[in-house]
Amino acid sequence: MSRRARERGWMRTIHPSGAHNAVTDVPGVRVGHAGLVASEGEAHTGVTVLDLPGRDRWRCRYFAGSAVVNGFGLMTGRDAVDSQGMITGPIVLTGTRSVGAVYDAVVARSLAEDREAVANDLPLPVVGECDDGYLSSPDLVCGPETVEAAFQALGSGPVDEGGVGAGAGMHLFGYKGGIGTASRLVSWDAGTCIVGVLLLTNFGRPEDLRLPWGLSAPPGPDADPRPGSCIGVVVTDAPLHPHQLQRVAARVGFGLARTGSIGRSGSGELALAVSTHSLDDSGCAPAPAGFVADRPLGRAPVMDLLYGATVDATEEAVWNALLAAQTREGPQGRRLVAFSDRHPDLAWAPEWVRG
Amino acid sequence: MSRRARERGWMRTIHPSGAHNAVTDVPGVRVGHAGLVASEGEAHTGVTVLDLPGRDRWRCRYFAGSAVVNGFGLMTGRDAVDSQGMITGPIVLTGTRSVGAVYDAVVARSLAEDREAVANDLPLPVVGECDDGYLSSPDLVCGPETVEAAFQALGSGPVDEGGVGAGAGMHLFGYKGGIGTASRLVSWDAGTCIVGVLLLTNFGRPEDLRLPWGLSAPPGPDADPRPGSCIGVVVTDAPLHPHQLQRVAARVGFGLARTGSIGRSGSGELALAVSTHSLDDSGCAPAPAGFVADRPLGRAPVMDLLYGATVDATEEAVWNALLAAQTREGPQGRRLVAFSDRHPDLAWAPEWVRG
Amino acid sequence: MSRRARERGWMRTIHPSGAHNAVTDVPGVRVGHAGLVASEGEAHTGVTVLDLPGRDRWRCRYFAGSAVVNGFGLMTGRDAVDSQGMITGPIVLTGTRSVGAVYDAVVARSLAEDREAVANDLPLPVVGECDDGYLSSPDLVCGPETVEAAFQALGSGPVDEGGVGAGAGMHLFGYKGGIGTASRLVSWDAGTCIVGVLLLTNFGRPEDLRLPWGLSAPPGPDADPRPGSCIGVVVTDAPLHPHQLQRVAARVGFGLARTGSIGRSGSGELALAVSTHSLDDSGCAPAPAGFVADRPLGRAPVMDLLYGATVDATEEAVWNALLAAQTREGPQGRRLVAFSDRHPDLAWAPEWVRG
Amino acid sequence: MSRRARERGWMRTIHPSGAHNAVTDVPGVRVGHAGLVASEGEAHTGVTVLDLPGRDRWRCRYFAGSAVVNGFGLMTGRDAVDSQGMITGPIVLTGTRSVGAVYDAVVARSLAEDREAVANDLPLPVVGECDDGYLSSPDLVCGPETVEAAFQALGSGPVDEGGVGAGAGMHLFGYKGGIGTASRLVSWDAGTCIVGVLLLTNFGRPEDLRLPWGLSAPPGPDADPRPGSCIGVVVTDAPLHPHQLQRVAARVGFGLARTGSIGRSGSGELALAVSTHSLDDSGCAPAPAGFVADRPLGRAPVMDLLYGATVDATEEAVWNALLAAQTREGPQGRRLVAFSDRHPDLAWAPEWVRG
Repeated sequence: MSRRARERGWMRTIHPSGAHNAVTDVPGVRVGHAGLVASEGEAHTGVTVLDLPGRDRWRCRYFAGSAVVNGFGLMTGRDAVDSQGMITGPIVLTGTRSVGAVYDAVVARSLAEDREAVANDLPLPVVGECDDGYLSSPDLVCGPETVEAAFQALGSGPVDEGGVGAGAGMHLFGYKGGIGTASRLVSWDAGTCIVGVLLLTNFGRPEDLRLPWGLSAPPGPDADPRPGSCIGVVVTDAPLHPHQLQRVAARVGFGLARTGSIGRSGSGELALAVSTHSLDDSGCAPAPAGFVADRPLGRAPVMDLLYGATVDATEEAVWNALLAAQTREGPQGRRLVAFSDRHPDLAWAPEWVRG
Repeated sequence: MSRRARERGWMRTIHPSGAHNAVTDVPGVRVGHAGLVASEGEAHTGVTVLDLPGRDRWRCRYFAGSAVVNGFGLMTGRDAVDSQGMITGPIVLTGTRSVGAVYDAVVARSLAEDREAVANDLPLPVVGECDDGYLSSPDLVCGPETVEAAFQALGSGPVDEGGVGAGAGMHLFGYKGGIGTASRLVSWDAGTCIVGVLLLTNFGRPEDLRLPWGLSAPPGPDADPRPGSCIGVVVTDAPLHPHQLQRVAARVGFGLARTGSIGRSGSGELALAVSTHSLDDSGCAPAPAGFVADRPLGRAPVMDLLYGATVDATEEAVWNALLAAQTREGPQGRRLVAFSDRHPDLAWAPEWVRG
Repeated sequence: MSRRARERGWMRTIHPSGAHNAVTDVPGVRVGHAGLVASEGEAHTGVTVLDLPGRDRWRCRYFAGSAVVNGFGLMTGRDAVDSQGMITGPIVLTGTRSVGAVYDAVVARSLAEDREAVANDLPLPVVGECDDGYLSSPDLVCGPETVEAAFQALGSGPVDEGGVGAGAGMHLFGYKGGIGTASRLVSWDAGTCIVGVLLLTNFGRPEDLRLPWGLSAPPGPDADPRPGSCIGVVVTDAPLHPHQLQRVAARVGFGLARTGSIGRSGSGELALAVSTHSLDDSGCAPAPAGFVADRPLGRAPVMDLLYGATVDATEEAVWNALLAAQTREGPQGRRLVAFSDRHPDLAWAPEWVRG
Repeated sequence: MSRRARERGWMRTIHPSGAHNAVTDVPGVRVGHAGLVASEGEAHTGVTVLDLPGRDRWRCRYFAGSAVVNGFGLMTGRDAVDSQGMITGPIVLTGTRSVGAVYDAVVARSLAEDREAVANDLPLPVVGECDDGYLSSPDLVCGPETVEAAFQALGSGPVDEGGVGAGAGMHLFGYKGGIGTASRLVSWDAGTCIVGVLLLTNFGRPEDLRLPWGLSAPPGPDADPRPGSCIGVVVTDAPLHPHQLQRVAARVGFGLARTGSIGRSGSGELALAVSTHSLDDSGCAPAPAGFVADRPLGRAPVMDLLYGATVDATEEAVWNALLAAQTREGPQGRRLVAFSDRHPDLAWAPEWVRG
């Protein structure tokens, strides 16, 4: 049975999805996961890398902007992105305990890959975290090996979802959560572009969950009392400037709210939006060259299409994470149940919806 | 037939409502509406005033904070509120065309009511606007008379909703919109407090609407092509400080997103949150006196109750505005149809929801 | 004797000034002042208009961004500018009491001038205020006549400074203040552009003043106990996008700090930056057409030149306002003394500075 | 000869300093430095720790707020502090290359020191960085040993300044820079409190420098072409709430601007303000208990005293860093000259200033 929301009839959406309904539908974007499992097979954490297109990973700069939907979280490099309006290098996700070691491993990797570019201008890489401490252990730290494995796993095409990579130990509305993704093709009279969303979901108490179509479920489990967080990454090939990308990033919050998020006090919903528009011949885009030609994007109607696409794709990515995740056990008998296991009969929209 | 969402079974909510399920459930808060109708009976605009408790309207200061959910709108005084963490004086809502004249009338009123207090320290009153230009006319400007009438109409108890006061000419998802309100009683081991929300709704394209419970409706009318805006006011007697009130104000955005808002580019969703906690003997609260005694509020669990209550009350206030508004005709044959007229059969949740 | 800082040797600056060392050095920018004096000749307030280039005042859109240096003030339309990244229409300055009436007069003027453009899409004009209540009166309100007079007075070339237009009743470090302006020509290998600053100064207590070059003065007068505010407008023909303009606007704060501002609690330092780059044939710039050609601007070195120019021009505009203002008497025997009258011997830098 | 600005007559200030004119004048605050020198004795980097009072380092929570003066930098945990309005744990400073490893070492230390408190609620520690890459090396990474050494070095009393701890490799206006500190005692009718500032300075091009009192120097050296950054930490025992502390943090920017900072595009000026008010008997302050008793602080006059004290102490801390730093040589013949070496004749204010 399919584990994705679209095929189950959960989504009512205006825009079609890309080929894989994933952030990798944005040309050149690749995603890689690597999990870390404690020797005793109990604790779960990991790393997910989203690599932007371009031949020179540590030199290409893309317009970017961020949004603090709710702030009790950490996305390193966020202030630098908003200051410069640009991002250089991959976007990395992991568990709270591993932020420091993963950050260090990413910087070390940048030096190993392109010392000439970064030795005198060290990057402030983007590493976003959610707290997977319930299924993981404070003694389990992702380091260079896990980061290397995630880079090695980088690929285009379909993206594994649920408890993979950084999502290994994450929860979602009391169930098992983790990685989710979706995409939307946006067309208007003068062109087409794609919006892809990648989420690391780890938020929501059981009572927050608001299923689509009025689907109703008995109260879910309440294993992990922590409010959690969510990191959202939006990538688009639309020729947006930084100011517009900040507004796109803020729409991640609208999508999360649709699924029931109330932005709990102990939760950190942080979002980043990147435009990969108009790579030049070197495979690198110091600044979007097509900005002027695509000027209509600056007008409200097309921005509204992009906003709507971002909200829709964010909502769908949450459901994809929820539906893909499988039951997982952690240390001390801890356990996060899969929504799909608990509510197989809710897997499809009711008949009156499917018509 | 009731025109409110709660009685129709549209809401699934954790916290009960106050006596009137309105912002006036917060002790001392009063609301007054006054409409302005063009001589030919065609154009519609107006003013709504929310008066805070306290005997000395232009002297009492309350902790307050704001949030820019989406920015293409105007709420005068917002920067001053966020700078001081406090608000003095009533909160006034009106149509875009009348902001200047209404602002001036409010300042003039402050001088007439308490010249001693304000002559040397003129207020920067909060006047929020939405664009009612579809049903109204650029020649129809609310001034001192309409402002005076709204102040005269101030009252506690139930609050008229829909196309009243500032809501006279507003739209909502292509239907007639306007004023909506709701409240929530929040209880925890150490106390109870109330959260009230007052909205001036004027947002959403027909295709944005996401009814609760998966209720489905054929595409609504599309009379007004403008994206509109929404002003949200949250008032609570919880002893919150300004930093917490900014976060409460941001939850208005979560509530709007539940109803389908995507924060369109031409829309301005601005929110304000005020704490009326601990009036002293003069009926005025220079600073919350009970702040320390109620310290548990600072801990996440109670903040989460308040956040959830704000999101719920905001969502319900949108539905109340949608359900209360009645069909209205404007100049040049313009017309905004009432949702209740168009979809009487959707007035109730389906049987499987009501159980 | 010259009343400007540059000629007095007060400035040590890297970039040269434009022809008039004024915001009007930016091609097409015009400034107009109109004062309002009470019948008894005692109270002083007024209006200053800064008109952007382009034939269609209410249709041209320019990239723009704002900054809240310190928030206890009001600049209507600021949220809308930051939301859209664009501004349409003139920038208007006045005293606190007149904000509402001036706002209304500007909207009325937009309808009278170009009803077709604005009737269905009313502007949210930018009206910035400072509190001139010490020399003015709460009964003295600028309305349509004063606004009209300021528009009629629009001109290029030198700009009157000190107690003119909106500056009529303003104070500065305990002395008489008001309007100040300055400009800088910024050149780099690939081009030249100009940065102009217009300030409405009304800030600083006597003890805050920090004269340049270590110039020292006995404590100044302390007539007006109010902390005041400052509105700063930066206009440049550099091809900046909104995100960069927000950062330019923030540099107004750096310039104010150089003169001694500590951002007092009751003060509102709000700044706006606008790019007039690349008008098209209609005299209007929906979006900067030369953005890509001038891509080097996006690199730090040129941005740094623009930042430095903005800080320098802001500092100089403060000194120009201080030096140009003349002693003025208000109601109830109130009086703001001119710095130039009190400290004629400080008019020039000490010999060791002039070399 | 004294290497501090105060004794040299550089400061004109209203408020007196604390006993050590250092952030350690705030009761209970301790600072520790540890440098890391490459085996060949050439590269320089390090770690500085600021420890807040209280017996339980990982449990005590203090009200706090931050400000992004200029954003191209990194202060981990900043979003979390602003979200919660509180900080827990020490504040750590280091070079750009070491952020990840230092972050990891701090988290590891929290687990080693108080596993019970943090194992299920891992901290998001505050680690701020500036780029010392000119005198340091990308191969020189501070890790657990350097962090441990800095903690071991924690002490009250005088604070070493200049090229110590995290300041080891930093520059300042083209000269050698690093750590600087200062404090101010603020007294008003109802009490006294102290404001301490600790800076990690690494900013400014030679041409930016604006010495106090009009002191003039020939253009300084231009060894390091990088714009650098500055991390500012303000600690006070004034009973401020988070909203007020954010505004205090923003005043660091005013102080930096006085010294000549223009907030260069590649620079990150990030500031944090913390209130240690009212420790309870356990030596820990979950929330300021004296908040209400000290209510007058909320009024503008006392806030203005605190703002002025923060600006003054920030300026003085910059000069202290500049004057204390000694010439240092790095790899590849790189060298940062001490201001004190280059301009011994500028060490004192001119006679006309000293009177």
